[in-house]
Amino acid sequence: MAAKRLSLADSFFLNAESRDAYMHVAMLHRYALPEGAGPEWVGQMVARMKTYPVDQSPFNLRLRTGVGSKVAPAWEPDERIDIDYHLRHAALPHPGGERELGVLISRLHSQPLDKNRPLWECTVIEGLHDGSFALYFKIHHALMDGMSGSRTMSRCLSPDPSNLDMPAFWAMPPLKRASAAVPKAIAESAQALARTSVLSVLGQSFRAWMRMLRAAPESGLIGPYRSPSCSLNAVVSPQRRFATQSLPIDRMKAVAERAGGTLNDIVLAVCATALRRYLLEQGDLPAKPLVSSIPVSLRTREEAGEGNGISLALASLGTHIADPKARFQHIKASMQANKDLLGTMTKPALTLYTNLLMAPFMIGQMTGLAARTKRPMYNTMVSNVPGPMEVLYLNGARLLSAYPVSLIFNGQALNITLLSYDGHLHFGFTACRVALPHVQKIAVYLGEALAEIEQDLGSEGRVTAA
Amino acid sequence: MAAKRLSLADSFFLNAESRDAYMHVAMLHRYALPEGAGPEWVGQMVARMKTYPVDQSPFNLRLRTGVGSKVAPAWEPDERIDIDYHLRHAALPHPGGERELGVLISRLHSQPLDKNRPLWECTVIEGLHDGSFALYFKIHHALMDGMSGSRTMSRCLSPDPSNLDMPAFWAMPPLKRASAAVPKAIAESAQALARTSVLSVLGQSFRAWMRMLRAAPESGLIGPYRSPSCSLNAVVSPQRRFATQSLPIDRMKAVAERAGGTLNDIVLAVCATALRRYLLEQGDLPAKPLVSSIPVSLRTREEAGEGNGISLALASLGTHIADPKARFQHIKASMQANKDLLGTMTKPALTLYTNLLMAPFMIGQMTGLAARTKRPMYNTMVSNVPGPMEVLYLNGARLLSAYPVSLIFNGQALNITLLSYDGHLHFGFTACRVALPHVQKIAVYLGEALAEIEQDLGSEGRVTAA
Repeated sequence: MAAKRLSLADSFFLNAESRDAYMHVAMLHRYALPEGAGPEWVGQMVARMKTYPVDQSPFNLRLRTGVGSKVAPAWEPDERIDIDYHLRHAALPHPGGERELGVLISRLHSQPLDKNRPLWECTVIEGLHDGSFALYFKIHHALMDGMSGSRTMSRCLSPDPSNLDMPAFWAMPPLKRASAAVPKAIAESAQALARTSVLSVLGQSFRAWMRMLRAAPESGLIGPYRSPSCSLNAVVSPQRRFATQSLPIDRMKAVAERAGGTLNDIVLAVCATALRRYLLEQGDLPAKPLVSSIPVSLRTREEAGEGNGISLALASLGTHIADPKARFQHIKASMQANKDLLGTMTKPALTLYTNLLMAPFMIGQMTGLAARTKRPMYNTMVSNVPGPMEVLYLNGARLLSAYPVSLIFNGQALNITLLSYDGHLHFGFTACRVALPHVQKIAVYLGEALAEIEQDLGSEGRVTAA
Repeated sequence: MAAKRLSLADSFFLNAESRDAYMHVAMLHRYALPEGAGPEWVGQMVARMKTYPVDQSPFNLRLRTGVGSKVAPAWEPDERIDIDYHLRHAALPHPGGERELGVLISRLHSQPLDKNRPLWECTVIEGLHDGSFALYFKIHHALMDGMSGSRTMSRCLSPDPSNLDMPAFWAMPPLKRASAAVPKAIAESAQALARTSVLSVLGQSFRAWMRMLRAAPESGLIGPYRSPSCSLNAVVSPQRRFATQSLPIDRMKAVAERAGGTLNDIVLAVCATALRRYLLEQGDLPAKPLVSSIPVSLRTREEAGEGNGISLALASLGTHIADPKARFQHIKASMQANKDLLGTMTKPALTLYTNLLMAPFMIGQMTGLAARTKRPMYNTMVSNVPGPMEVLYLNGARLLSAYPVSLIFNGQALNITLLSYDGHLHFGFTACRVALPHVQKIAVYLGEALAEIEQDLGSEGRVTAA
């Protein structure tokens, strides 16, 4: 295979990377040791995984070096892959609890990948007190986004606990890349314009763009860079803290139904409740509502036959509202306004619109200007990644949970990404260690927020907007 | 305390640092768990260490940021030190043997320090199968050299096993910095010139310099950049491998006496024997002898009343000679020629001479030119650091061994540093993972080399030069 140029969207993640914000993402899997597994079980599994050659894209690709590699980065196959670098075996110190695991994951996620090698690492972690082990898989966002990372991990698992010879994920044929990465849209817009009526596309996206920019606060639409500033929007340092929380999907769905909203509305509501409580406690809650950036996949107008499109909603989290019911209605209305706006467009128009929306942010990150501005494009990202719904096994070890560990940007010190698996939503909170030393509290408050919302919204049956 | 400018020598280690060669050094201590210590002992010790505030120089100093910080780097006290970042608790996976420890140390030493914080980390490692635990202390060479690192670690230990309340090293008053760092000499030369007869200093160092450059190979003197090239002199990658070996000092001294050499001659002889065997095996032994760079502390001519001076010997390791006795005599003669040359100078002249010797190397590292040249200044560094000779304890845990983990430069893929403690010389081999994937073999061969030399040199009593 010859060298392969990176797309504009992928190279964004190389260009935006700095010593203070590494652009890798990860997945954290937790597995139950099979019955009767001895202390050597994990080591033997690691040894078995190492027998699979790293010969599949993108796991065998490294950045090409030499003249022009900075201007036009490209991948090339690495012929001398050192599996002991990529697959690591580690352990937690005594007592091997959630705290020790959180510390290790935070530390692993704070370390850069070696740019001379294929940009991924996988660490198998033993020494958990409860008879489980963990798997942390880290990959540069220029190679793979979080959704593909999740799909990659699932592919080497089996719904059959007796299946003991699934190959390692780096030895499986390439995955068709999911088009979930918002910045990827930039690369697609020129093609999209070529395929359809240019004037119609420009008209649609321009109208949507102006509608958003001119929107009054009560419309539920919020323009970029209209967010208040708080500790979530600090200049970041390279050290991360990672916290997790999981919520049962059936409880979330039940309360969504009673409240007349979607599952996603409840996801935003629990995030908003937790963030409001955390910032109030820190004396740092802005008077204006926090704005969340939410990647959305939308069924667009079908005239161009393009199917689903990917864009970004900027929704108010209603954190200025003390009353839980009113806050929920506010969030729901803001999401609906976003969907109404985005739904007016065909896919090419949506793509162009998304590019207009993201361009200043991407330029800010690549030039380092984002570290010098006090006005954030949004306050925090809340990203919902679909995961496998059936129970899966790794060599007979049951997958208990799967948490996304994401990346943060300068001026964006908190990322909330959640993944669905086995009846639960698994929330991963990835934060700057300096800006958010107590991110663990947000995770705890999120767990308590669901119970609060159930009580507030559920006791009187279906809630209607005032 | 106000900001404090870095000396020219210290800032060399910031300027020479690249993504492929981080400029930190470390110490690896191994301790026996006290009798009756349970699984919580190490964690409790870590918790106790964390109670000491990080308020002493250099442990509380970070690099000043802002305008001019790259041109004129300076230290400033960090008022918000996060001890959980600096002091870490880790564990080895099953079976917790030497291999697992080597893998973890190699990995820790491959990771950069966070430049936003004081440039040091300390990791306490449990899970060793033999009832011991380890302590890995890493610090940037711009803050401290290996000798000071060793002294720092020793200061928080006690010869009394019942002493259970020694403070952590970061809470002890600053150490007077040892003047062992060769590059530091540059900063001193201007002062030295001001204190003594300029013409005499220039004359001495110029004569010594010319004598070395004009020396014939059989004189034992070797000029810089006259070394052969081999895998020890590859362009390095950021990943390290670390290997260790320890040799009893009494056996080394006995064979030195029988052979009519010094302890240091035997150190070089075992290194030479191991390197020759390794390179022969790899089909990579140069026809010309390998050249070792050896930091030396010399009693200089006393006319300026300056006492000991620090310089660098470039000695032949005689690796082209198959006969062990002849090789030993060759090494001994080369070291003697170096001492004779360096001994002709007063301390100021020695300092100037050392600067002349080191300047091209330092410039090569700082500009990145070292990565593009095929001619190394020397082949490998062999550095002998004096350590504590009495048995020491950390909160009742006996220090079993102390290994230096050093740094390598571009074009210098192997560093051998040894430290004396409790009757043994502890050799640490720090190598580039790509250039020297089998550095472990060199450590094994070093152990076997002593037995070979004992047999070859010892059987006939005292050896005399042919």
